[in-house]
Amino acid sequence: MAQFQASEGPASRVKASFDRQSIMALLGAGLGVVEPGRVDIVLPYRADLCQQNGFLHAGISTTIADSAGGYAAYTLFEPGEDVLTSEFKMNFLAPAKGDRYVASGRVVKPGKRLSICQVEMHAYEGEQATLCVIGLLTAVRVTPR
Amino acid sequence: MAQFQASEGPASRVKASFDRQSIMALLGAGLGVVEPGRVDIVLPYRADLCQQNGFLHAGISTTIADSAGGYAAYTLFEPGEDVLTSEFKMNFLAPAKGDRYVASGRVVKPGKRLSICQVEMHAYEGEQATLCVIGLLTAVRVTPR
Amino acid sequence: MAQFQASEGPASRVKASFDRQSIMALLGAGLGVVEPGRVDIVLPYRADLCQQNGFLHAGISTTIADSAGGYAAYTLFEPGEDVLTSEFKMNFLAPAKGDRYVASGRVVKPGKRLSICQVEMHAYEGEQATLCVIGLLTAVRVTPR
Amino acid sequence: MAQFQASEGPASRVKASFDRQSIMALLGAGLGVVEPGRVDIVLPYRADLCQQNGFLHAGISTTIADSAGGYAAYTLFEPGEDVLTSEFKMNFLAPAKGDRYVASGRVVKPGKRLSICQVEMHAYEGEQATLCVIGLLTAVRVTPR
Repeated sequence: MAQFQASEGPASRVKASFDRQSIMALLGAGLGVVEPGRVDIVLPYRADLCQQNGFLHAGISTTIADSAGGYAAYTLFEPGEDVLTSEFKMNFLAPAKGDRYVASGRVVKPGKRLSICQVEMHAYEGEQATLCVIGLLTAVRVTPR
Repeated sequence: MAQFQASEGPASRVKASFDRQSIMALLGAGLGVVEPGRVDIVLPYRADLCQQNGFLHAGISTTIADSAGGYAAYTLFEPGEDVLTSEFKMNFLAPAKGDRYVASGRVVKPGKRLSICQVEMHAYEGEQATLCVIGLLTAVRVTPR
Repeated sequence: MAQFQASEGPASRVKASFDRQSIMALLGAGLGVVEPGRVDIVLPYRADLCQQNGFLHAGISTTIADSAGGYAAYTLFEPGEDVLTSEFKMNFLAPAKGDRYVASGRVVKPGKRLSICQVEMHAYEGEQATLCVIGLLTAVRVTPR
Repeated sequence: MAQFQASEGPASRVKASFDRQSIMALLGAGLGVVEPGRVDIVLPYRADLCQQNGFLHAGISTTIADSAGGYAAYTLFEPGEDVLTSEFKMNFLAPAKGDRYVASGRVVKPGKRLSICQVEMHAYEGEQATLCVIGLLTAVRVTPR
């Protein structure tokens, strides 16, 4: 049935895995767009996520960017497979200041083993978006033995 | 006086800045070793810091590694100066599983503007340490105008 | 006069600097598109630029990607300023196999000191392009003292 | 026999592969130390390897660092296996100025599929060494089908 298929689809598998990432609940992050090869994660501002100057800590920007990139790869995997991050690199372009932050992951090159993703994080002050982080990430497909 | 000098020294400046990183309190992270060019940050295990398989989320490993690297650079700065991360790159070598995690930052090349730091994160299961993350980071010295 | 202005413009400054990069002549690389914030470098295939399997060596892909990125930043600098690479990160997506290679650098975020560039390298087999390298690069503006 | 075993050993396999990297001959680079998990590559200064200011081009530093890292991983592989670079990240700490350059690759974490290596490049002016490049690299083990 359609509903059953939906519950097997990439979006529902991403949601199920995301809901097990307890850190996302702690940070208050939620899933945004989930499409094949593309995932967004949305994080509202909270004072307790910041570094010494009141900007979102670079590691927290990275946390949502990492999950967005990993799940973007995951949308292209088969049911039963899992994803791990092998490595990433992030450049910080502007202080992360805003009322919410949106991390986007997009698969540049899917692979049998390794998928390469581009990630970005924008800070939003109302409708005004600032590109704060750009990065590259290698996601590993983990197949059950 | 000695005490006054101490309160001006790098270790106390690191501590003062670290205490303003509200995210460190949220995660439960604390300062470890603080020496010129070297800073450790210690994070006890908590279930709510994990990804979907119960390992410390790569972004949280990165968060403490980033702060360790940035503060390692900061120990070599002058009073009144601040530090920002320009970029970093992390490789994840093993799942971050343990009862506590220790991130270490070490300045490889101090600079007037840019300081390059090596960062590592070990997971400890009792006394047994596993190297989970290795990375490189560029810290920017911010001078007051 | 127009011609004099041209000889002062970014394109001619890029060309003058590129012509001093002796390694480009050794490799047989040439300038392609030069626009504000964007530079391409073209390298025809040569057997003596390869690694053990006959693909372009990752370091040579990187060499032209690095120059493309650095010069992309340089197009936005003032006359008399110079450019150095602070760091880069490259992901290799496919073996670099083709009759020519085109590296493109594009400024994502220009800065007073640091400019962040995205770089790519495509291999061309006739008209068929394959994305082989994607990377991020930090270029430093060097101002004469 | 010992001689036969030697010709099967990691050092001779590295040498055989290195000799097929035609780019190394073009640059004038040679093998230095080859030990399990560690490989050095030596490159004498040549004016035609430089960028616009007469320093070794960052891409050429990277070329020898990449080969040093990849071959360091390769020393731990089985005969018949090959190595490819998945990604690397390099930080440039000082202008590469000297009469010769030595790139060192060292395996930090060997793996069934992915091996993580640390790479460095020093410039030598006589006996004086300057650390010019530090980097991290992921090497992929390629097994014959």
